[in-house]
Amino acid sequence: MKITLNNLAIAKNTYQKRWKEATRIKSSLARCLLAEFFSTALLRFIGTGGMVGYVVGSYNILHVNIIWGLAITSAVYPSYLITGGHVNPAITAIIYFHGYVSFFHAILYMIVQILGAMLGAALSYANHREIILFYGNGTLSAVGEPTSTGNIFASFPGEHLSNSGAFVDQMIGTGLLGVFIGFFCEKKNKISTVMQPLLYGLVATMISISYGINMGAPVNPATDFGSRSFAAMVGYGSEMFSAYDYFFWIPIVGPMVGGILGAAIYRIFIGHHLPDE
Amino acid sequence: MKITLNNLAIAKNTYQKRWKEATRIKSSLARCLLAEFFSTALLRFIGTGGMVGYVVGSYNILHVNIIWGLAITSAVYPSYLITGGHVNPAITAIIYFHGYVSFFHAILYMIVQILGAMLGAALSYANHREIILFYGNGTLSAVGEPTSTGNIFASFPGEHLSNSGAFVDQMIGTGLLGVFIGFFCEKKNKISTVMQPLLYGLVATMISISYGINMGAPVNPATDFGSRSFAAMVGYGSEMFSAYDYFFWIPIVGPMVGGILGAAIYRIFIGHHLPDE
Amino acid sequence: MKITLNNLAIAKNTYQKRWKEATRIKSSLARCLLAEFFSTALLRFIGTGGMVGYVVGSYNILHVNIIWGLAITSAVYPSYLITGGHVNPAITAIIYFHGYVSFFHAILYMIVQILGAMLGAALSYANHREIILFYGNGTLSAVGEPTSTGNIFASFPGEHLSNSGAFVDQMIGTGLLGVFIGFFCEKKNKISTVMQPLLYGLVATMISISYGINMGAPVNPATDFGSRSFAAMVGYGSEMFSAYDYFFWIPIVGPMVGGILGAAIYRIFIGHHLPDE
Amino acid sequence: MKITLNNLAIAKNTYQKRWKEATRIKSSLARCLLAEFFSTALLRFIGTGGMVGYVVGSYNILHVNIIWGLAITSAVYPSYLITGGHVNPAITAIIYFHGYVSFFHAILYMIVQILGAMLGAALSYANHREIILFYGNGTLSAVGEPTSTGNIFASFPGEHLSNSGAFVDQMIGTGLLGVFIGFFCEKKNKISTVMQPLLYGLVATMISISYGINMGAPVNPATDFGSRSFAAMVGYGSEMFSAYDYFFWIPIVGPMVGGILGAAIYRIFIGHHLPDE
Repeated sequence: MKITLNNLAIAKNTYQKRWKEATRIKSSLARCLLAEFFSTALLRFIGTGGMVGYVVGSYNILHVNIIWGLAITSAVYPSYLITGGHVNPAITAIIYFHGYVSFFHAILYMIVQILGAMLGAALSYANHREIILFYGNGTLSAVGEPTSTGNIFASFPGEHLSNSGAFVDQMIGTGLLGVFIGFFCEKKNKISTVMQPLLYGLVATMISISYGINMGAPVNPATDFGSRSFAAMVGYGSEMFSAYDYFFWIPIVGPMVGGILGAAIYRIFIGHHLPDE
Repeated sequence: MKITLNNLAIAKNTYQKRWKEATRIKSSLARCLLAEFFSTALLRFIGTGGMVGYVVGSYNILHVNIIWGLAITSAVYPSYLITGGHVNPAITAIIYFHGYVSFFHAILYMIVQILGAMLGAALSYANHREIILFYGNGTLSAVGEPTSTGNIFASFPGEHLSNSGAFVDQMIGTGLLGVFIGFFCEKKNKISTVMQPLLYGLVATMISISYGINMGAPVNPATDFGSRSFAAMVGYGSEMFSAYDYFFWIPIVGPMVGGILGAAIYRIFIGHHLPDE
Repeated sequence: MKITLNNLAIAKNTYQKRWKEATRIKSSLARCLLAEFFSTALLRFIGTGGMVGYVVGSYNILHVNIIWGLAITSAVYPSYLITGGHVNPAITAIIYFHGYVSFFHAILYMIVQILGAMLGAALSYANHREIILFYGNGTLSAVGEPTSTGNIFASFPGEHLSNSGAFVDQMIGTGLLGVFIGFFCEKKNKISTVMQPLLYGLVATMISISYGINMGAPVNPATDFGSRSFAAMVGYGSEMFSAYDYFFWIPIVGPMVGGILGAAIYRIFIGHHLPDE
Repeated sequence: MKITLNNLAIAKNTYQKRWKEATRIKSSLARCLLAEFFSTALLRFIGTGGMVGYVVGSYNILHVNIIWGLAITSAVYPSYLITGGHVNPAITAIIYFHGYVSFFHAILYMIVQILGAMLGAALSYANHREIILFYGNGTLSAVGEPTSTGNIFASFPGEHLSNSGAFVDQMIGTGLLGVFIGFFCEKKNKISTVMQPLLYGLVATMISISYGINMGAPVNPATDFGSRSFAAMVGYGSEMFSAYDYFFWIPIVGPMVGGILGAAIYRIFIGHHLPDE
């Protein structure tokens, strides 16, 4: 066959079809895990970039509020037809609570979300390594120094905040998120699937502004813990975990409790009473 | 029956159904009151968080403009299929003026809106108590000191503003809101129910920017009065009401008059003349 | 008939119907003029509020960019089913150029747009008179002093800008607007009527950011001239017109030329070549 | 025939029809090239205006993030029914990779995109020449001086950044874009054509915030190279190309590689596994 541009196009199409068939995953569970892994990596990858601009660059706090909303919208869209794009163990817990996913699968989702967040943080670190080291005079310090940059990768409490206050803060912030996830999950509300990632992003920016004052509104155990673990491994050290009296577990447990509470509150106040169609 | 994960899932579903049936409210009025209570609590809960960041944190005035818009959108959505999400006595008055709700029910709506705002402010206070006290050196001062934080919970007039000027300001700001509520209420305009919370939020941010200069654009008697009452009770004292020559009644009465006027102006200039379909 | 709440509701409905019938305008032209008058008043009313916050308050330039976009969206929606909401003589000229409105009607539209802008500026001035006088130490100065506030009501050129540069700037800025009005007018593009006010607002913010550097992107002869005239009458004096070598005609003529050019450019590059359906 | 306004209107309509027929382009390829030329000119025209406000005016970095998103949305809409509005050779490469455009046409698209970017930059320069010269004390300096303004027209690396770091940065930033273009291209995702320019704009702002820290997120070989070439010709000189060790090729090659990689990654993680309808 003569090599022409047209023949090349046909060849390309044939190749693409073969490529798709060769890599297509048949297992529905594997697809879902891959999607959650990918989307959570994307979320942390985008968010970490914004945090770099805030911690070592010229961004102000409004950038942080906006980028987490855009990160949620951007991260959820690619998976929205596969898992709906939880990208957050607290949301997976709510979905489990609604009975849309089994206990075992929920645990698997949470594990790949944490792994995804590690990868996302790692890629963003690789890309911003030069500017982070430039700012920190060649060293990586977790907290406590003027050139510390550990808060790029994980949340730490403000100096005014007790650990019990931090726990309540995370419960409340994620409770707010839970209300809206409960609202989206209720089919009678008719929020179309294609609109949900946009509204989820708006809600994320809203929570970041209204409940980010105390400790930056992590409200996501996977992105906080996964990214924190990566940072500890890459050179920030164990201080990522030990700082502020082993504070790290609060943005893990607080959101799990708060998220389910929020979804339940939505159902008690609104969801259970929606008129039948 | 053997306890397996699958059996647990079935048990959970059965339990959820029973839970729903057990808590489902049959009275349409009770549902509506619960929804207004919940949504107004949500509105004040979110907005108060943003005000904390502005008064004691590093937010600038754009944060305030944005968070009230996001708070409106977020608070209205959950109730949008039950009451439409008034979350504001001035809007309930407009809805009454349009004949969609009776006089007696309108009064009940307004009462639960005020109670909801009290709860929302209280929850947000509980969460931000540490940072508010940190900023105020351990005390709660309503107005007049550099460390006063009363404006987290209620509006106060700028120093240039007379009380008659404040009254006009609230009439005009809520008049602007009334024009758009009138516009949404007119069915010929075909603004779909699902789009209204988004547009309502945009309008709230717009009013906050263009008519928030004089006294912060409360334009909502329930969130202003309910939250002010809570603040007075929790330790800010009677100054929340007595400051600026008992100014507190202005953001109650001004919006009620302005809202209805605005909706009437919309009808006189546009609504009455829309072509029949 | 006994006076009960129910009877009152019926009475109210009857009254509302009578009110509507009594005030309903039959003339299609009169409806359109009223709508343009109302919407342009709304646009200038909202925009002037934002300018007050920028000139005498703590807003930064991003507030100005955002408020003009929100003002356009908010002002256009109420009229969007009657005239489409031109709110700008440059757009009326484009609509005339497309043949959707006659020459005589176009002139009438432009007159009521200017009158509307005068009313909008007057109402906003009434509401912000106290803060404007507070800032200006009791006087109204158009330009040239640190306490001048004439730029609340009308555009003036930056110090680096020649008047020929200003004319080109207005042609280009409104040309950009014209491209999008041409795009919206082309029915093949299928931009639904209900979406147009939102996109028009986005475009307004875009122009304000990208072409507001030289002289603030008035790009609207009615809001600039109407508001400028009101300001001259209320106490700013003839300097509103004479300043910068009688610069005031540039934001009138520049946009009219630029708007039509922009719409024509859209058609030459894109519109004429759209595939038939 | 008597000359009346009505007759004039008829004459105008007839003239418009003739004008359209006379200028209508029959060749589908020519239409597409014209559309890409026009939209890329629009993109660079809008974006350059925003950069002027940032470099010589009072804008902060958030303006830059927002204006590039608005520029993308505004530039893509006009062409969205003709080519879809690539406005970026990296995207044309992705579309080619998906088999929707031939190799030869893709090359032509890229050439007109570069030419369009040159025109857009030139028009914006013409409009802002006075303020740019005012800021630069009458001279045009590319880089290295406090009054340098070359970064209005093209990207340059931050002082902390190596050229290999810059290459990775461009690959990653455009990879992020590629993921979303891959997502839009997959028809199963059902992102309606009319919604794509809005989402594309959101993604552009997101990338600008999260990956603009190192070198300003050009992620577009045409707008960067075309505008850089114009600037070199108009007076900034060869330094536009030679600065930072001939850095200029990085925002050309990096995005081409990264864009295709990103789209492939989307397909490997998500696209290939979407359930059949």
